[in-house]
This record gives sequence, C-alpha cells and structure tokens, in this order.
Amino acid sequence: MGLTAENHDQIKRVAIVGGTHGNEWTGIYLIKKFERSPELLRRSNFETFTLLANPRAWEINRRYVDRDLNRSFRRQDLENTNSDIYEIQRSQWIASQWGPQSPSPIDTIIDLHSSTAHMGLTLIWVKNNAFNRQISAYLKGIFPEINIYSWIESESQPENPSLKSLCNYGFSIEVGPIAPGMLDAALFLKAEKVIYALLDYIEKYNRGEIMESDRTLTIYQYIKQIDYPRTATGELAAMIHPQLQGRDYQQLNPGDPMFLQFDGTTIYYQGETPVWPIFINEAAYYEKAIAMIFTEPQTIEIYE
Amino acid sequence: MGLTAENHDQIKRVAIVGGTHGNEWTGIYLIKKFERSPELLRRSNFETFTLLANPRAWEINRRYVDRDLNRSFRRQDLENTNSDIYEIQRSQWIASQWGPQSPSPIDTIIDLHSSTAHMGLTLIWVKNNAFNRQISAYLKGIFPEINIYSWIESESQPENPSLKSLCNYGFSIEVGPIAPGMLDAALFLKAEKVIYALLDYIEKYNRGEIMESDRTLTIYQYIKQIDYPRTATGELAAMIHPQLQGRDYQQLNPGDPMFLQFDGTTIYYQGETPVWPIFINEAAYYEKAIAMIFTEPQTIEIYE
Repeated sequence: MGLTAENHDQIKRVAIVGGTHGNEWTGIYLIKKFERSPELLRRSNFETFTLLANPRAWEINRRYVDRDLNRSFRRQDLENTNSDIYEIQRSQWIASQWGPQSPSPIDTIIDLHSSTAHMGLTLIWVKNNAFNRQISAYLKGIFPEINIYSWIESESQPENPSLKSLCNYGFSIEVGPIAPGMLDAALFLKAEKVIYALLDYIEKYNRGEIMESDRTLTIYQYIKQIDYPRTATGELAAMIHPQLQGRDYQQLNPGDPMFLQFDGTTIYYQGETPVWPIFINEAAYYEKAIAMIFTEPQTIEIYE
Repeated sequence: MGLTAENHDQIKRVAIVGGTHGNEWTGIYLIKKFERSPELLRRSNFETFTLLANPRAWEINRRYVDRDLNRSFRRQDLENTNSDIYEIQRSQWIASQWGPQSPSPIDTIIDLHSSTAHMGLTLIWVKNNAFNRQISAYLKGIFPEINIYSWIESESQPENPSLKSLCNYGFSIEVGPIAPGMLDAALFLKAEKVIYALLDYIEKYNRGEIMESDRTLTIYQYIKQIDYPRTATGELAAMIHPQLQGRDYQQLNPGDPMFLQFDGTTIYYQGETPVWPIFINEAAYYEKAIAMIFTEPQTIEIYE
C-alpha cells in the first residue's frame, strides 16, 4: 500500500529550520551541527537546506525581536510592503527564497522548536495531506512516543501563520519540557534521530518504495486555546493546577482540577466533554493569553 | 540547647525579596500575594517587609536590564557614585533603605529565586553564623528535601556580590527546576510553606524558646565553577551529559560522564576526587561561563 513514484510528486527540496524562535536552542544547535557536517543530511535523491530563521533574535537570545516570526507568515504580512518590523521583513525574505512564488520552492519544511510544556516529541501539522500522514505514521512506528498535533484551527479558514505553512509538506518538531536558552542533551539527541529518520523516509518515498505502516493514525486535533484566569486589570490570577501540570496529552474530565488560584482555591474544568490539553504552561504563551490548548484525539485513515 | 533571648540579639526587621531576577516568577508572585495579604507574614515580635527588587527587569520579563542585580552588591558597586547602570542604582537604593549604614538596617533577608537546574529546595548561604545554621537546621527538620549550599567562595575574601549579603542573617531560597517566565504551582507552594515556617522560627527565636534540632548539619560547600567546553571562538562545544543532567547534589566520580560534545563523544570528569555538582544547566549561567558549580558536603556543628 502507500503512494509510489508512479502516483506522487517527487520531493526535491527539503528545508530543516531552527531558530524560528531565537531562544529555542535545540533547533539552533542542531542547525549549527548540520552546517558543520552537511553530509549528515545528504541523501541520494533530493536536496536538503538548513536555515537559522531568526538570527537577530538568536543574537539576543530571545524568542523574537519585534514579534513572533512563527506568526508572521499570513498573506497580509507577506504582502505588507512597508513594514519596519524585523520579523515581517524576515518572513518576506524566507518566502522569497522558498515560498510557492519563489524561483525554487521548497517542498517540505521541518521547523525545530522546543517548549517548557511536557510536549515530549510532537509533530505539529498545519496541513493534513497524504504525505504528512504517511511520514508521521512512519516516524511514529520508529518512535512510539511521538504525538501528532493538528494545528488546523478551521477547515473553512485554513490559513496558518507559521513558517511551515509556506509549503504543503512538513511539520514542526516540538520537544519538551525544556526552558528557553539552554540545551538538554537527551532532547537534542531525540530530535536529531527524528530528523535522520524523516530524511531516510523521503529518500525511500522518492524511490517509490512501499512504506509499511498502520492503516490509521491518531492525531490530536486543535479545539481551542484557554487563557489563565485573570484579574480585572489582566493580571494573572491563577497557576496551572499541580494535578494538571505536566499532563499534556492526558484526558481532562469535567470536574478535574485545572487552575490553582493564589489564595489556594481550585478552579475545575467546567466543560461538558473531556478534552486533551497540550502546551500546558508554555512560558512563551503567557503573553499570548494561552494557558493550554485543548485538543481531542481523532483516528484518521492514512491512505484515503 | 540553642541560643536564647539572653544571649542573642532580637531579630527586629525581616525582608522577603522577590524579583531580584525579573524573570523568576515564583518569588515575584509570592511577593504579590504577600502584598495583597500582609497578614500572612505578620508575626508578634518582629516586622516583615517585602520588596520586588528589580521592577524594571520584571516589566520586561528578563533577568536584568543592564547587569545581574544579584551580583551588584559589592562595595565597589555600592560606592560607585556615578553609574548609569540601572542595577547599580537599584542596589544602592536597596542598601540605602536596608543596609548596615541605613537608618533602619534589616536583620534578615530572604531572597526568592528559581533555577532551571534541579535545585529542589535549596537555601543559599553567603554567611555562616549561628543564626543561619540554626534556622536552616530547623527548616530541614520540617522539609527534609532541603539542601543547604554555602556560597562562601573564600574565608579570606568573604565579600559576596548578592543582595542577601547586605545583612548578617538570611539566605536565598532557590527552587527548581523551572523555566524563567512561568509558574509551577508545586514549587510556588513549597517556597511559600518554607517562608511561613521560617517566620514562625524567628518568632520563637525572639522569644528565646529552645529550638530542638540535630547537633550537626550537612552543607554543600562551594569549591569552584566549571564552564562548558568551548571552541576557540568561545562557542559552546558540548552539552551537559544526559547521565549528569538533573543530578544536582549527587556524587560525581572521576571518570563519570560530564559533557556530551555535538559529535557524540563524551567528556569525562577528570578530577582526582569526587565532587557534588549543583546548578547543573542553569540557563542564566551560560553567559556567565558556568555549566555547573562543584561543591562538597561538609558536616558542621550547629552550636559551636
């Protein structure tokens, strides 16, 4: 089963990107390693490029200079011809090099991220297509701890602001928990192994070799984002409850503890159906008004 | 045993400090809580003050504005009358309010910190005296997981650059692991309980009530700080080895793995005697050229 060379396009150009957030060192030091040793990425039937996406943010060891680069790839930003914002200029430059209108579009973008949440090894899709389903199923077969998060907020409004949305194929690899501005060797080695495995997959895919995998795949589908309880002036009024902290991808049932207010009282989940929160307590999301993202698992057909 | 009101000074003024580092939220939100509910800190026979030490760093959610405030309390900084550095101005202001030359010196400073290292619950001394030994032993009796780190680099040069060095008594409370710019409710609650217990201790101490405790106390004595392996240009050349990551306060023996270079080769600890590393992989210490701090446990007499 699976697609063969007869019925799919070849993948010709793959990009491995790090430092889209300038303080997420796992991806940045992987890119540095690959740029020192490009043979590690070399495969027989496609080209692989590397990019440190936000070099000025990396210089100052912050997520971004002016605004989040990974929210700067909407059409309105890419077509904004008169912006002083560094990340807009940067997203436009990246799109000019690799986007669908560029002379040599990239087919597949792998964008390397890290989180303070217990995201383990997560593949974040912004497009659900046969290639992304098959490569994700293949990787999950090798690394069973992988979870797949489908960050497709709405079928009717599929535009996504992230860098990887520039092309049809690919995903982010999100590892965690890890603080910004540091390295954790175990997470570094895991992300590195996933990258080699996915390049191996693409090589076989281009050869039309049949990929054995399960028929179905479980993904965690975006439902909505949840903010912290806040005071009238917008100040934080509660913390993630200790019983929820670190339990990304685990079922949260109506009545389960969700937040702990500073006076010691608990706020319980009031929804009517279970949810599976992820990105619980991501430090960079406090300013985005996101305490966690509710998802629900869905079993989907890989070969439909 | 123990000191009584007959043979020691009363503690009259205690300061609880948070936000000495503007992105260490545990202490900052504890201070906010105490400022909303000052009765939580009220005890019968001394006054307790609170301070958010670096408000401008907190506004921008960074460790500091110009330089580390907790390294800005050396005499040369406090006597520098012509500095544009925000943290120098701030250390001078704090010293003018609370220092030994101020009209109303503070007796005891408790400075609240957090770390990305697995510091658990650590009390950091910069002065070894009977009060600090006794209160630390008392707290360890209640919270057995507490470790005591003696950051006294040299008996002959006892000057310490930290905020708590302003007075004779007190210590930092360091909790971890936690990333900067976020809260972990379990660590918040632990630090909060330690604060109430130490205020209770001081109340009894002032009353001259005998404190039961062990005769001896184990402290981890500073030996030296260790940088990461670096390239000729100063770039990071290795990560903390996965077998050392998270093992703060555990014995590191000659020949044990210490760093993992990016090419996958291990660097082993080459010392001749065991050490007990702490602050392993503190994110804020990469720029200080500190991968970890070597300590050694010492058993000391509490009542000497």
